[in-house]
Amino acid sequence: MPLGEFELIQRYFAQVAEASSDASVVLGVGDDCAILTPPASRQLVVSIDTLVEGTHFLPDTPADLLASRLLGAALSDLAAMGAQPAWLTLALSLPTANAEWLKRFSERLAELCLEFKIALVGGDTTRGPLTLTAQVHGFVPEGAALVRSGAQVDDLICVSGTLGDSRAGLEAQLKGVEQPGFAPYLSERFFAPSPRIALGLSLREFAHSCIDISDGLLSDLAHILKASGGLGARLQLEALPLSGAILKSYGQDQARQWALTGGEDFELCFTIPAEKLANLAHLPVPIAVIGKVTQAPDICLFDRGIPCEISGSGYDHFLKQSPVE
Amino acid sequence: MPLGEFELIQRYFAQVAEASSDASVVLGVGDDCAILTPPASRQLVVSIDTLVEGTHFLPDTPADLLASRLLGAALSDLAAMGAQPAWLTLALSLPTANAEWLKRFSERLAELCLEFKIALVGGDTTRGPLTLTAQVHGFVPEGAALVRSGAQVDDLICVSGTLGDSRAGLEAQLKGVEQPGFAPYLSERFFAPSPRIALGLSLREFAHSCIDISDGLLSDLAHILKASGGLGARLQLEALPLSGAILKSYGQDQARQWALTGGEDFELCFTIPAEKLANLAHLPVPIAVIGKVTQAPDICLFDRGIPCEISGSGYDHFLKQSPVE
Repeated sequence: MPLGEFELIQRYFAQVAEASSDASVVLGVGDDCAILTPPASRQLVVSIDTLVEGTHFLPDTPADLLASRLLGAALSDLAAMGAQPAWLTLALSLPTANAEWLKRFSERLAELCLEFKIALVGGDTTRGPLTLTAQVHGFVPEGAALVRSGAQVDDLICVSGTLGDSRAGLEAQLKGVEQPGFAPYLSERFFAPSPRIALGLSLREFAHSCIDISDGLLSDLAHILKASGGLGARLQLEALPLSGAILKSYGQDQARQWALTGGEDFELCFTIPAEKLANLAHLPVPIAVIGKVTQAPDICLFDRGIPCEISGSGYDHFLKQSPVE
Repeated sequence: MPLGEFELIQRYFAQVAEASSDASVVLGVGDDCAILTPPASRQLVVSIDTLVEGTHFLPDTPADLLASRLLGAALSDLAAMGAQPAWLTLALSLPTANAEWLKRFSERLAELCLEFKIALVGGDTTRGPLTLTAQVHGFVPEGAALVRSGAQVDDLICVSGTLGDSRAGLEAQLKGVEQPGFAPYLSERFFAPSPRIALGLSLREFAHSCIDISDGLLSDLAHILKASGGLGARLQLEALPLSGAILKSYGQDQARQWALTGGEDFELCFTIPAEKLANLAHLPVPIAVIGKVTQAPDICLFDRGIPCEISGSGYDHFLKQSPVE
């Protein structure tokens, strides 16, 4: 028997909402709007993100992986602002009300809400081609948000974690796995990104600018440089942080290519004055210094001091076909 | 030449964002998140709504009508809470980056943002089946929001405007127009609902409960009665406010049926103590008293005092096929 929309929401999402709720949620799921109490003297930061079947993921992707992919990408935007997560709303278009799908999705969602201390406060479910939209809401002290526009000449350019893994994970899905031993790790990096919330909070005090790597390092770094008044950068390719998995499965050339242009790593790229770098030494997440901000407005690549070029650029939905299709 | 995603956002939505922005928008479109300053001592109310081609509207619906339909429905949720609109985010999945479509959509969007004093502060555009999601954000003084759960026995049940027109407007699209003279009005009610923001603000002081009519009067009234502890209602069918257009095009029986079950009128249904009703007399929007809240937990229908029944109930996406398909 088909489930009614209301029963469906009640059964699968009311529990998530209740489990993740806190005192700031005056009224959650179940009225025309949620009623929320913003903390005093804080700025609200919000971001909305959509995943579409066929554009961002393959048909029949398990629902729990979609939950972690959706929330990971959305929370990564809060991380890039140095924001503390607070509230989540979801808009789900589903071809059918499939109980098994909803169970897997909502259970993983609940785990992530608790892990990242974000409360599900509202949503909309509609019938349609599989499309998942999440809006995340977070808070920063007044004037403390990390933005793209603060980079300065001679800032060090840093990235967290390793780059290119997400693109490699996608490749493994599309074309099969060359090195079976490593695929699970790379696939996990694609489906379950690690939003760098704690790092973002720490960077508020030290970094001049920050962005999360969603379009690809070169493309996202270009956003910082453009927003900061038309600056440039020198990047050392040998400093790009690459995982053992990507190197072993795809080799250094391909790994570097994907590290620069692959996108959807959801690591942070930030610029910081050299003298502040030591303040990040205590953080559990690895930080790599990959270059320096320059006055000259181009991004120049060097391999052990020798200038080089690389083909391809960041990922742009409307410019070219998505690799998923 | 296909447009790039960034250029597309820049060209069509940056202008809307700029035109609609106010001092509360510290940073709008163009970073990982928007940065917003909530007003002091206010509660934030949020709602997210999705329209899907084939489920909520027919293919080839003009983009300006989709803008007014999307924003009208979303703002109506703020109206139902008695909230003052503040900020808007959009997630658009588009099959192609069609410049003419984007122009029409964004121009109508800009008009509506200015009319309802809501600022476009962020969004996401992706490639996919046409799916439009809007999240609206508004504010109420602490504890002042209208909710569903406050109805009391003997409250009068009131609705704004006229009911059933939106469903009639959909019918005219699906099956052709019987009375050509009236179809534009009914279609306009479907595509360009009038969110009752000013009424919602006025009701905060007087109404016990409120909801916007999105699923159909019977279904939405049932939400109020259930949320208010399992109350019931007596409704006078002869008091249902019906437009001349719907009566002339479809006759009284069909008009009443759609007024009770049609949905998507985006009028407000609220309950109010009889002695407070006079306070609403000065409002420009027509208010009809259609019944009374009862202790007995059923909704009983009367036609000039004689009990009667009506078939059909509110609209529920997953329970039955949408009339659009």
